[in-house]
Amino acid sequence: MSSNYTDDSYALHTDLYQINMMETYWAEGIHNKRAIFELYFRKLPFGNGYAIFAGLERVLDYLRELHFTESDIAYLKNELHYKEDFLEYLKDVRFTGDLYSMKEGETVFGNEPIMRIETTLAEAQLIETALLNIVNYQTLIATKASRVKQVVKDDVVMEFGSRRAHEMDAAIWGARAAVIGGVEATSNVRAGKLFGIQASGTHAHSLVQAYKSEYKAFHSYAKRHRDCVFLVDTYNTLKIGVPTAIKVAKELGDSINFIGIRLDSGDIAFLSKEARRMLDEAGFEDAKIVVSNDLDEYTILNLKAQGAQVDIWGIGTKLITAYDQPALGAVYKLVSIEGDDGKMVDTIKISSNAEKVTTPGRKKLYRIIDKENGKAEGDYITLYDEDPNAEQRIKMFHPVHTFISKFVTNFEARDLHEKVVENGKVIYEVPPTMEIQKYAKDNLNLLWDEYKRSLNPEEYPVDLSQKCWDNKMKNIQEVQEMVNDFINE
Amino acid sequence: MSSNYTDDSYALHTDLYQINMMETYWAEGIHNKRAIFELYFRKLPFGNGYAIFAGLERVLDYLRELHFTESDIAYLKNELHYKEDFLEYLKDVRFTGDLYSMKEGETVFGNEPIMRIETTLAEAQLIETALLNIVNYQTLIATKASRVKQVVKDDVVMEFGSRRAHEMDAAIWGARAAVIGGVEATSNVRAGKLFGIQASGTHAHSLVQAYKSEYKAFHSYAKRHRDCVFLVDTYNTLKIGVPTAIKVAKELGDSINFIGIRLDSGDIAFLSKEARRMLDEAGFEDAKIVVSNDLDEYTILNLKAQGAQVDIWGIGTKLITAYDQPALGAVYKLVSIEGDDGKMVDTIKISSNAEKVTTPGRKKLYRIIDKENGKAEGDYITLYDEDPNAEQRIKMFHPVHTFISKFVTNFEARDLHEKVVENGKVIYEVPPTMEIQKYAKDNLNLLWDEYKRSLNPEEYPVDLSQKCWDNKMKNIQEVQEMVNDFINE
Repeated sequence: MSSNYTDDSYALHTDLYQINMMETYWAEGIHNKRAIFELYFRKLPFGNGYAIFAGLERVLDYLRELHFTESDIAYLKNELHYKEDFLEYLKDVRFTGDLYSMKEGETVFGNEPIMRIETTLAEAQLIETALLNIVNYQTLIATKASRVKQVVKDDVVMEFGSRRAHEMDAAIWGARAAVIGGVEATSNVRAGKLFGIQASGTHAHSLVQAYKSEYKAFHSYAKRHRDCVFLVDTYNTLKIGVPTAIKVAKELGDSINFIGIRLDSGDIAFLSKEARRMLDEAGFEDAKIVVSNDLDEYTILNLKAQGAQVDIWGIGTKLITAYDQPALGAVYKLVSIEGDDGKMVDTIKISSNAEKVTTPGRKKLYRIIDKENGKAEGDYITLYDEDPNAEQRIKMFHPVHTFISKFVTNFEARDLHEKVVENGKVIYEVPPTMEIQKYAKDNLNLLWDEYKRSLNPEEYPVDLSQKCWDNKMKNIQEVQEMVNDFINE
Repeated sequence: MSSNYTDDSYALHTDLYQINMMETYWAEGIHNKRAIFELYFRKLPFGNGYAIFAGLERVLDYLRELHFTESDIAYLKNELHYKEDFLEYLKDVRFTGDLYSMKEGETVFGNEPIMRIETTLAEAQLIETALLNIVNYQTLIATKASRVKQVVKDDVVMEFGSRRAHEMDAAIWGARAAVIGGVEATSNVRAGKLFGIQASGTHAHSLVQAYKSEYKAFHSYAKRHRDCVFLVDTYNTLKIGVPTAIKVAKELGDSINFIGIRLDSGDIAFLSKEARRMLDEAGFEDAKIVVSNDLDEYTILNLKAQGAQVDIWGIGTKLITAYDQPALGAVYKLVSIEGDDGKMVDTIKISSNAEKVTTPGRKKLYRIIDKENGKAEGDYITLYDEDPNAEQRIKMFHPVHTFISKFVTNFEARDLHEKVVENGKVIYEVPPTMEIQKYAKDNLNLLWDEYKRSLNPEEYPVDLSQKCWDNKMKNIQEVQEMVNDFINE
């Protein structure tokens, strides 16, 4: 397959209906109408109180490179039978618009725009699938990692999940997202190389099997590796593994840096406490205990409650696949489109479910920060031309349960969107991954602890301004009138 | 990121401990010892009675291309501080061994080798992570798709999940795996191009929003597309959507091919029955009803029980992410290694859990097929030099509960492994995806229906030959003696 197309591109990494719609718009001459789409999710994953945005780097790569190659066009022509005239148009399609986005590492909540895409109707349609594909996954994993970090507190967490990731991209981009969410290192070497994050690992059971002896295996390993973590559960953890690790560490003394041992099976609570005792008695009070065995934030919380003696947690399957909720439901909705007279007209998608009704219009998103305590009071969505910073006090009310409201004064309204692509040109440089991790950590400090509990957190307010709310109501009314007219026709 | 390295490769797409172990083996001069590893999973996913193997095409691509590029070596040197002598060795590493594998589309069960890797110890270690990464995901999705197909029976199923897939590789390889499992088409155009599978799709809500009218949107769509499926739930499915679709279909008559309508929200059982009635009354008895709304095999079974009138099922999130069990736990275990005298020595990994004890030795895997009824009696694992076809009858017994056994006569023992790579050269050509789909379907016909129920299927027998069993017991005993010696030292 790799050899089938030397010019394969991501332009066709989209749902077929996007190309059908592009063709319809193009044939009608409305493909270049200005359109504004928003990308957002409705519901936070894992019952968490917040999410951590990730995915911008990959989105920028994708937009930068976006164009139909010869083999893409040939496929559309020969297999899907698109006509020559439309294909001629496609050949020149690039992303020519603007992208406003949160920065990676930003704390994000339901029903607020992570990205705003302002470009031609046809281009906006083409890129929908890839943007959702990227942002949904990476944001999900960054959020899962952040949940794990909330539970382990100051312990170190390593991402070990490549072998269970959903194919190769998920292994590396998932590792990066996990680091953004706070994880210290990954086992995936390629992720280490590509993203400047720490690659980490020691040895597997097969090393011991190859020597048929832990003693020989540990000694051989130590010959070339100063930093040693010995895996101790190949035959019998407490009777052979730990004693052998201690024996080898004593024999080799200062010629190695005996970091500690790793447990990969059995009852972690019991084994880690016994291993700790044995290490301490042998004088290795500083030796670390690394564990890995189908862990997630729930098991870690329980193991800690049982007094497990663990310093470093290796998390595989359940982090890289977001096992307990393996999809984030971000959507991509049209909120405004150029009318026949060249003016922008807001649009809405109605649903019988109030939460699924879209919020029309070109909008801005602010985080309202209390100037006294430095904490976030909530997020505030306004129409584009509003400026909350010019106001003395703002009224924030719940976007569905509108009777819940509060006034806020003495605040800073921080614009959460940055223009990252302008007229098709990427104008934003993604910071190094470790800086993004720090940015995410600093952002979380804006939140009260109540929003950060892993179980039943408080709901963080995401509110609409009065103008934004009124505009939504007006649009709903228009659609209702249209529906009534249709039925009474 | 895409621009950081022009020579990025998959050689570093591995866990760091693999490279550490390679270094240890290399430093000790045992890296070129012959080693045999097996890749298998222990437990079938989703409580299903079988799995469908997928992933070989990608594995062959990976092995064919495997080598460390300049930037890979530079990263290992500059960031991870591997020494020059070892890096010199890595520069020449290629996959030089043999790969025996099931063909894609093969029905596969727990505890039987999907692949057998026979190569140098160092190479076998390097490739473990990528092989598991690929096979775990693709096999999981092919199996999930097959479950869906068991439930929909003769209805058509389309894979719609790109936007929720775990990053870009999962979207396309997941689409291919879904087709192998029996799905008819995918929405992902790139998957259609790369794998020769059917890409499918019509239009989204945004088309209707762009025109602010279903009537205008359907007409515009029909101008360029002969095959029309109209999405009818943007405003009000039964009051506006379906009537408008019927009106437009009548107006356009034979100038289009009115395939039908699509429902994407609301109560599918109720709406599909009403829509069916309306279409029939309008004379469109042949029009199809396509539905898509968070579906999986469980909801489909329920909708069918309620008499939902659906012809085509679009399955997104829950198929492409294997939502209810998003990871398959395949492992990769050393079963034999060259000893100091050049002879192969079997190895075992002991565990307190009987199911986790590996089965040592170079082995073959046969499907025992009853010559009278053509059905599979079970799978049979033998040591390499056994030939069940030369025997009149074989005794099959359960590998854990050994008291469960039966004799089988008048059978064909079909070898399930094919040599696909020989001395590092790929000697097998992967068939076109649609042929693999047919192969999978034919294979499933070998199974009694009892193994194919989506809920509580019978357990299909996977048994060891007497010789294979005796060899395992001998290896267990040796380890136990070694453990006892150590403790009594």
